Amino acid sequence: MTGMPVTPAAPAPVLDPFADIVDLTAAIVDVPSVSGDERALADAVEQALRTHAPHLEVIRDGDTVIARTDRGLDRRVLLAGHLDTVPIADNLPSHRRERDGREELVGRGSCDMKGGVAVLLALAVRADAAPVDLTWVFYDHEEVAAADNSLTRLAAERPELLQADFAILGEPTSAGVEGGCKGTMKLQVTARGVAAHSARDWVGDNAIHHLAPVLVRLADYEARRAVIDGLEYRECLNVVAISGGIAGNVIPDRASATLNYRFAPDTSVAQAEAHVREVLSGLGVTIEVTDAAAGALPGLDTPAARDFLAAIGEGTSVAAKQGWTDVARFSALGTPAVNFGPGDPLLAHTDDEHVPTTDLRHALAGLARFLGTEVPTA
Amino acid sequence: MTGMPVTPAAPAPVLDPFADIVDLTAAIVDVPSVSGDERALADAVEQALRTHAPHLEVIRDGDTVIARTDRGLDRRVLLAGHLDTVPIADNLPSHRRERDGREELVGRGSCDMKGGVAVLLALAVRADAAPVDLTWVFYDHEEVAAADNSLTRLAAERPELLQADFAILGEPTSAGVEGGCKGTMKLQVTARGVAAHSARDWVGDNAIHHLAPVLVRLADYEARRAVIDGLEYRECLNVVAISGGIAGNVIPDRASATLNYRFAPDTSVAQAEAHVREVLSGLGVTIEVTDAAAGALPGLDTPAARDFLAAIGEGTSVAAKQGWTDVARFSALGTPAVNFGPGDPLLAHTDDEHVPTTDLRHALAGLARFLGTEVPTA
Repeated sequence: MTGMPVTPAAPAPVLDPFADIVDLTAAIVDVPSVSGDERALADAVEQALRTHAPHLEVIRDGDTVIARTDRGLDRRVLLAGHLDTVPIADNLPSHRRERDGREELVGRGSCDMKGGVAVLLALAVRADAAPVDLTWVFYDHEEVAAADNSLTRLAAERPELLQADFAILGEPTSAGVEGGCKGTMKLQVTARGVAAHSARDWVGDNAIHHLAPVLVRLADYEARRAVIDGLEYRECLNVVAISGGIAGNVIPDRASATLNYRFAPDTSVAQAEAHVREVLSGLGVTIEVTDAAAGALPGLDTPAARDFLAAIGEGTSVAAKQGWTDVARFSALGTPAVNFGPGDPLLAHTDDEHVPTTDLRHALAGLARFLGTEVPTA
Repeated sequence: MTGMPVTPAAPAPVLDPFADIVDLTAAIVDVPSVSGDERALADAVEQALRTHAPHLEVIRDGDTVIARTDRGLDRRVLLAGHLDTVPIADNLPSHRRERDGREELVGRGSCDMKGGVAVLLALAVRADAAPVDLTWVFYDHEEVAAADNSLTRLAAERPELLQADFAILGEPTSAGVEGGCKGTMKLQVTARGVAAHSARDWVGDNAIHHLAPVLVRLADYEARRAVIDGLEYRECLNVVAISGGIAGNVIPDRASATLNYRFAPDTSVAQAEAHVREVLSGLGVTIEVTDAAAGALPGLDTPAARDFLAAIGEGTSVAAKQGWTDVARFSALGTPAVNFGPGDPLLAHTDDEHVPTTDLRHALAGLARFLGTEVPTA
């Protein structure tokens, strides 16, 4: 590339954290930030914090932005949200619509979890007199392998930045509280055969055909529902990718399927792997775990969690978190943590991903009460 | 690319058609020519013909090389071989080995069908006094979709070049005669579902899991064996490629399998399609034919075929051709055609593809007798 002219980077989009929360969410959604491509959004968040929150120390680490108060208070609460999304499915830029008398913001990331990011950003610039010290974390690479998640790097290299007495993740919960989370594991299942010309298949051995019983067992699989502390965690075991084939006239000698197992938080990573191996036992395929992260038990009975629930209000729903979230990461660090954010988690990653505007306002108001901050009502 | 320096093309490798047939085959094998990348080998063949065969009119058409006598004789025989191979599998350059007292040349294309190409090239430069006029065709894009085969273009644009009373294809037959060939059809089978987060699969519908019964039916499929004119054609129905998956944490809404059906020559393309649709009936998948070519009935009772068999000798084996070959293309043009070439067809496309050197010498000697030409014996 020597001598090639360098295209100057486009200036970061400007975010106004004092704008109406729906406008702010739309502005954040409209900055595409598929995992690995978070820089423009991280730049915009950093710039908004540096411009509008003189009470915060702002730290940039890769495409993660951290902002902290340091007022010497007894307790520190960490509030975090990831900036990245799953791939765009022709659902950007965002638009608004009204359905059944309800206003919704539609677009990739509106639910998972740029609504939550908008709520956190709106409060970060306002909560300069909270009853606790605050750490705000806007981070990258959440929707990919756990090893690439920037919190993995921070926990290893700068653990002091993640230290807190309680953590709140802005993942979508329909502005209710969701406790704990399931674990997640990816496995590569590989079948082998013998290549041959496809006009003489009796000389070869078709590896793709050897995946037939693997798919049958997973299609027929009946997943466990685990009830823990009164919350129901539904397990899931799926083939999320499949590939094989050499050429149109060759019997393939190799085929593989990628499995994703979401397991209840009472199950360890080792137990989860043993279970998948049992489900696929006797099929003559090789099974390799490529990524795994344990879940988190609900932990709603810790003092810090009880204080948060009291501030949020008794009418708030409390349920199990189905998707793996970084609540598990904080749980492993010994920090009680809950999920609390706008958006229906069932819509995360769907093409019709959207967030009701009332969710945005409820989450903003609830967290503002907890932080002792005023926000304008719509 | 404006202004970029252009790397001069490497000169074509030089082929000596008067070299020992094993040396000539090795030289041809060592010019890689995967479908779409035949230019260097076509250049080398063209140069060898122009240099060593003044009795031939040489015509270049794309990456196909045609060479003809025009001596005004009563009958014209066409001899053809394709220059391309399936993808290389770490099996180039070629090498020789001895196994069970038999010398073999090993490497991609040695069997399918550069051994045949070498035999044709060696005879093209020598057969200047054959009892019939001759057309030699060295062509490209045989190992891919029928629509891309250069004979399709020639048949449409310059059909006079393919006109002949009898055709011999140098496809591997272990230097025996193989009559007719099976038809071939490619089909795309697609399953649809509903995308969702993989931690909440009950909201989605896994398209890859819907391929389970497709794979089961094909893995369990018992193929027909059709006996025609005493020759047995074994049908084959296989998944040759499979793909699906959006991201590691998304339930996929689409998955597809590519099928290859090799059907007996008593079955039409329409009948073949109906059969596959019946095999997969009731599975809720869509099925689309993407490529098809009918087979060819043996046709060994035509006068031209009988003359050829008599010249080749009574000891030569006669069997069914299992792989689709361009014998079907000539059959459709009304020209009787047979397959006759060195190499075991069971080894075509395998990683251990090789040709016994005795096959090369037998095929060379047999065709030389038919053409009334002398070749040196080893």
